[in-house]
Amino acid sequence: MITIGIDIGGSSIKAALTDVGKTVIARTVKPTNAEGGPEAVLNVIDECITGLCAGAPDAKPAAIGVGVPGAIDLENGIVYHPPNLPGWKAVPLAQLIGSRRDLPVRLDNDANCAALGEAWFGAGREHDHFIGLTLGTGVGSGIIIGGAVYHGARGFAGEFGHLSIDHNGPLCKCGSRGCIEAYIGIHYLMSRAIPVLRDHPESLLQQQAVADPQGLSPKDLATAATQGDEIARSLLEDAGRYLGFAVASAANLLGITTFIIGGGISAAGDLILDSVRESAMERTLKVHRENIVILPSELGNDAGMLGAASLFMK
Amino acid sequence: MITIGIDIGGSSIKAALTDVGKTVIARTVKPTNAEGGPEAVLNVIDECITGLCAGAPDAKPAAIGVGVPGAIDLENGIVYHPPNLPGWKAVPLAQLIGSRRDLPVRLDNDANCAALGEAWFGAGREHDHFIGLTLGTGVGSGIIIGGAVYHGARGFAGEFGHLSIDHNGPLCKCGSRGCIEAYIGIHYLMSRAIPVLRDHPESLLQQQAVADPQGLSPKDLATAATQGDEIARSLLEDAGRYLGFAVASAANLLGITTFIIGGGISAAGDLILDSVRESAMERTLKVHRENIVILPSELGNDAGMLGAASLFMK
Repeated sequence: MITIGIDIGGSSIKAALTDVGKTVIARTVKPTNAEGGPEAVLNVIDECITGLCAGAPDAKPAAIGVGVPGAIDLENGIVYHPPNLPGWKAVPLAQLIGSRRDLPVRLDNDANCAALGEAWFGAGREHDHFIGLTLGTGVGSGIIIGGAVYHGARGFAGEFGHLSIDHNGPLCKCGSRGCIEAYIGIHYLMSRAIPVLRDHPESLLQQQAVADPQGLSPKDLATAATQGDEIARSLLEDAGRYLGFAVASAANLLGITTFIIGGGISAAGDLILDSVRESAMERTLKVHRENIVILPSELGNDAGMLGAASLFMK
Repeated sequence: MITIGIDIGGSSIKAALTDVGKTVIARTVKPTNAEGGPEAVLNVIDECITGLCAGAPDAKPAAIGVGVPGAIDLENGIVYHPPNLPGWKAVPLAQLIGSRRDLPVRLDNDANCAALGEAWFGAGREHDHFIGLTLGTGVGSGIIIGGAVYHGARGFAGEFGHLSIDHNGPLCKCGSRGCIEAYIGIHYLMSRAIPVLRDHPESLLQQQAVADPQGLSPKDLATAATQGDEIARSLLEDAGRYLGFAVASAANLLGITTFIIGGGISAAGDLILDSVRESAMERTLKVHRENIVILPSELGNDAGMLGAASLFMK
């Protein structure tokens, strides 16, 4: 099926013309113009579509999928208050895009699209059931069951980031305690890491932790760890261990044993993924233990766009 | 649809002839004869079916559903090593029952059947999506999505009892820590309760906690609490609060906000359910908070039998 997939981010819009599950025929990226409000963003989307189609006149798209942050009315294609898109209240995005192009349009949130992208184009191709995780400021997640996104009754399922691993744990911005996001979300992770780095002159990051702590990111931890920094390594292993605890609970509840992890600290590769694997296998039920599979994302930042392109597949 | 539902327990077999979702036409219960091995149990099942059919000659059952503890190969109707049924290894139960009756037979585990029973005959009739919990030695659970049992990829989904609420929590028999079962499973609950009761002479249960602690059960806690025993009440409220933490994580992950609770301490009714509600609402995402519904089981010990009768409905 030939489709267009569009990933609307706060700073850029990425779009691709694809043969779903097979090839990316053409791709483009443009600044979002978020400050111009919905109308300006719609114009950028339009330019992206026009550009893609002009570049590949033989490929006739049959549908358009759109990934967007925020709460979505899936049935009616309405986006509510997407973060990073100022001036958007309730925008009937599917209808607005569809009416300009006379093509069916589906929306889903960016985290679900990222998981679906891995299902059709990436690390999930061989896995009918998995949870896709994108580690960033929050922990984005999408549950794939039988190759399709599981939305739950009201469209809000899949908030793996708010699975708590300790009811007495750190306060999460959602109001609960011990959510896995409150351990491995960027700000939470760095606010625990920086005092540790400061106290360890043998760390490659100690000077920056003192002089410019705000400039440090999980990727710096990952880089330092791969360069042999034992302090950075141990911080990442802790994060992986915590993530493994949440993975074990989700596996026990859902019977899903494959997890595909991208973003942020996942840049450290097996250094962190091994730690996730180890603690997940230690904590999950015996019946699941040998089936636990922890894979790195294959698509990185393209996952959302390619998942959006796959929204019409099931 | 007219069906027969059979619930195979370690001490008794319960069976009913039903018009699913409508009425129970006839019912029976017989000792399991578990010590006689599979053949003896099959004979009891056969007697149950014969008795039910003889008592209602106008009702022709179209199928037989069977709930049984243990791991099950759903597709092939094979039961593996059910606890409480000595001498059972891999028993092709669906085929063995079906060949005697020339009717299609489906199996599912007892916890899934209990949830499905509530879906068709009980507290879940108005809820398409819910998690059914049976509090006992373990925490039995079944996930109902769209009116049907969610089994997961390999048939082992739904182990809510092994969702951990504290990665440093009490050791669970599964090998993990802080599983909700390790807080509210009968033995875990009573082993925490008994020292507290012993230390509080004002509790109605203090003397028994000293003289015959093994004889105390969660139902005694429930009874004492409804008679005004503040110590028993506070122990139950703690248990409810812990359960609410697990409910919140499951709601966030699955987008399922209805929970139907039966067995053991659920006998204390709102006294414990209010506590579950309160902590679940406090800990779940804002988008779910007003949708949290915690209901008592309507079917009690009949849930498994009536769920077995409903196995052919989707």
